[in-house]
Amino acid sequence: MARSYSFKELAELVDGRATGDEAMIITGLNGLREASDTEIIFITDRKKINLVSESKACAVIVPNGSEVPDKATIEVDNPEWASAVIHNHFLTTRFVAQGISPAAHIGEKCEISSEVTIGPMVCVGNHVKIGSEVTIHPGVVIGDDVVLGNGVVLHPNVTVQHGSVLGNRVIIHSGTVIGSDGFGYSQDQAGKHIKRPQVGVVHIDDDVEIGANSCVDRAAFGVTRIRRGVKIDNLVQVAHNVDIGEDCILVSQSGIAGSTSLGRHVMIGGGASIAGHLTLEDGVMVAGRGGVHNSQKKGAVVGGYPAFDARKWARSCAAFPRLPDVIKDMRRLRKELESIKTQETDKD
Amino acid sequence: MARSYSFKELAELVDGRATGDEAMIITGLNGLREASDTEIIFITDRKKINLVSESKACAVIVPNGSEVPDKATIEVDNPEWASAVIHNHFLTTRFVAQGISPAAHIGEKCEISSEVTIGPMVCVGNHVKIGSEVTIHPGVVIGDDVVLGNGVVLHPNVTVQHGSVLGNRVIIHSGTVIGSDGFGYSQDQAGKHIKRPQVGVVHIDDDVEIGANSCVDRAAFGVTRIRRGVKIDNLVQVAHNVDIGEDCILVSQSGIAGSTSLGRHVMIGGGASIAGHLTLEDGVMVAGRGGVHNSQKKGAVVGGYPAFDARKWARSCAAFPRLPDVIKDMRRLRKELESIKTQETDKD
Amino acid sequence: MARSYSFKELAELVDGRATGDEAMIITGLNGLREASDTEIIFITDRKKINLVSESKACAVIVPNGSEVPDKATIEVDNPEWASAVIHNHFLTTRFVAQGISPAAHIGEKCEISSEVTIGPMVCVGNHVKIGSEVTIHPGVVIGDDVVLGNGVVLHPNVTVQHGSVLGNRVIIHSGTVIGSDGFGYSQDQAGKHIKRPQVGVVHIDDDVEIGANSCVDRAAFGVTRIRRGVKIDNLVQVAHNVDIGEDCILVSQSGIAGSTSLGRHVMIGGGASIAGHLTLEDGVMVAGRGGVHNSQKKGAVVGGYPAFDARKWARSCAAFPRLPDVIKDMRRLRKELESIKTQETDKD
Repeated sequence: MARSYSFKELAELVDGRATGDEAMIITGLNGLREASDTEIIFITDRKKINLVSESKACAVIVPNGSEVPDKATIEVDNPEWASAVIHNHFLTTRFVAQGISPAAHIGEKCEISSEVTIGPMVCVGNHVKIGSEVTIHPGVVIGDDVVLGNGVVLHPNVTVQHGSVLGNRVIIHSGTVIGSDGFGYSQDQAGKHIKRPQVGVVHIDDDVEIGANSCVDRAAFGVTRIRRGVKIDNLVQVAHNVDIGEDCILVSQSGIAGSTSLGRHVMIGGGASIAGHLTLEDGVMVAGRGGVHNSQKKGAVVGGYPAFDARKWARSCAAFPRLPDVIKDMRRLRKELESIKTQETDKD
Repeated sequence: MARSYSFKELAELVDGRATGDEAMIITGLNGLREASDTEIIFITDRKKINLVSESKACAVIVPNGSEVPDKATIEVDNPEWASAVIHNHFLTTRFVAQGISPAAHIGEKCEISSEVTIGPMVCVGNHVKIGSEVTIHPGVVIGDDVVLGNGVVLHPNVTVQHGSVLGNRVIIHSGTVIGSDGFGYSQDQAGKHIKRPQVGVVHIDDDVEIGANSCVDRAAFGVTRIRRGVKIDNLVQVAHNVDIGEDCILVSQSGIAGSTSLGRHVMIGGGASIAGHLTLEDGVMVAGRGGVHNSQKKGAVVGGYPAFDARKWARSCAAFPRLPDVIKDMRRLRKELESIKTQETDKD
Repeated sequence: MARSYSFKELAELVDGRATGDEAMIITGLNGLREASDTEIIFITDRKKINLVSESKACAVIVPNGSEVPDKATIEVDNPEWASAVIHNHFLTTRFVAQGISPAAHIGEKCEISSEVTIGPMVCVGNHVKIGSEVTIHPGVVIGDDVVLGNGVVLHPNVTVQHGSVLGNRVIIHSGTVIGSDGFGYSQDQAGKHIKRPQVGVVHIDDDVEIGANSCVDRAAFGVTRIRRGVKIDNLVQVAHNVDIGEDCILVSQSGIAGSTSLGRHVMIGGGASIAGHLTLEDGVMVAGRGGVHNSQKKGAVVGGYPAFDARKWARSCAAFPRLPDVIKDMRRLRKELESIKTQETDKD
């Protein structure tokens, strides 16, 4: 199952400078502590080069210009990236279709590629289209009229509600719900909440990955959209009619309220919340736990709640513990000033 | 499947003032951008009336006194409400029972109405009572002794644990867990946590809707109670022995800790947390991300963490970025005061 | 099913001082309001002793030295603990194996004890080892190479991904996902995110309990570790390579970012977030909603975001509403100082 490559092949794969025995066979990439003596490891921070000696690995991917005694090295500009490429290279396997389990339940008029693996206890609705090299793990439920592109992976107990469209190579982790109703109600005169029907859908473009137990709500009307290359962590909330631009990152337990748009490469830190009907332009970064109440211009970096410029926020946070002293100082100053004024008056 | 109504019928349904061809046939309600030329749209904010010209819709629901060229109008006090009523009117269909899937697993001694749809891969425990016009989607697991009222909808992969009671027309979205154990432990002398058995249940009253991947824990003793008309969003935590009053709203990722009571029409914003053993009286509003540590009187509007009066909180938040300057100013003032005092002393 | 004990037996079980009819038969432990006249209740706070008269219970567990008229009492040092022990004593039943449901799907080469209950719609992968007295509820999906110790309980719709190891008496509540991929990507030069393969596993030691809809990610390399006796609430995020020490408590909606280590007896309050690559030493307490950005020394008690000493944080929070007034006062003081300086200058 596991493939091996020569040291030279790996170096060429990432356009790196190889120092060591080019013919050496490497059997995998692993963590520094976990690696065996036929595996390659990586160091992203030059300051940690000395840790390499603790590893059994035979080779190491390092930042350009690093010197490592006793190990073969591949020097690259970006070891983060190079190690990911090499690791994926080792792990990529040809898709082997296992077909549709007899213990799965498939609806009517579906168009399902012959190159799929659909596990037991899977339930697929009617008029569902499933591309090739798709893996649907046990316990997944897919509603009517869903479209799954090629190479999609749905992990156990995922729910994809009716009308959702998933592009190629989309990965959804366990327990995540795609296409649940948006949260929309109108109050009648008695103050009762009347449900607003949620008749839109969810579109997820190519190469999106969504973690476990997250939620992406269907649009009230139209589409909730997650664009190419977006990566979403666990327990994240994406509300109705949100539009998330290409290559955005949403870290665990963050939430995006209804109708908010994110540009490209926006980074939402863990536990951060973005209010509804806002626009965060390209490259905006929101610090973990930030709460954003206003639209943000291109490249803005914000933190805090309500969020503002992250550097200013950091300064205010650093000052916050001194606030009680500020109040005491103020009182003392006022007294001193009063006593000076009194002296002045006495003199006059 | 879709029904049509005359323009006049729709206007009468919401007691609105119709201007236009009363006999015109309308086939549905839709979003401004999504509507076809036989559909009706709605505008809730008079300032956005000019957007109507961008829509293909043949008619529009508007606030009283709005003028719209080229479209038939229904004027009403509350277009939010009227559009919801009309939309629901279009979508309401007669329940068509599809019976119990042979791929569902039903326990012993259950009382199940003949008017139900129970999908494949559903698992129902023993002594379960299920009312009429109930829909249980695939992957739902229902424990022993559960009671489901009429018109209940359980979306895919919902779990309803033993002893839970759900009223009429309760809707639970995918992945939500009703009746998991409350989080209760006692420490022994060695500091180990001993589980406190959670022997209570969950009661959910009529017309409650709960979003996806939320949790409602069973009571330690007695009942965790969610009262009529409450609407709960995705990823919300409701702990053991909580009591949520009628028509409350809990927005996404909020959490209510154990034994806290909410009155009627309480509004908990997204990501807000309410500590345990508190009482929030009728009409309390907690801003998004607020953290409430104290009981709140009727109608209180609070924000921040720890939460206090929302208007005061907004003022403090507005001042927060200036805190580092305040500290600098203070230092300067103190110096100036010192120099004045020195001069005084010199003079004396 | 329910067992009964004499008053004397219960008192001896917790080494308590019994006052009352030692032969009296007690049928269960219950809440103050819920108890029948053959049940025992408990009071943890001496100030609430007077509530006992409202209960029908025949006996009450109380703190040492409490006097209760009309009821038999068991006096103990720690009624929290004693009541948990007695309650568990009433509820402990012998495990009755119901075997493997014919509607479950079991993979190849599994080693499953004969003393198990595996419900319908359960899906078990290949090479899975399952100990004795294990209960796997419907809808659970277990990946390949998983190991479950003795006495494990997996509630409905839990997912345990491949390679996870669960110790003895581990309880996982509904919807929780063990072993989903950690959230790790590297950017290529075009800014696209390349998935870093997550090839580690999750190890959960004995006596751990995890609530509903929580997530524990597998390690990138190596192990995400949850040690003996840890109790985790609902909707909690535990990221890859986290190590949680013995007897820690993680309250609902909290989150621990990647590679962070918690010592023993660490207490993470509800909704709190701990950043990645930190160490929280033994006994650290993080207040609810705290956001921890720095490693914390043994016994530190912190709150706020970014978190600092909890007592100082409370003082700063108490001062925060006064911040706008501080700014006004500052302005006034500056003016007065200016006017004094002007007078000085005039005099000179």
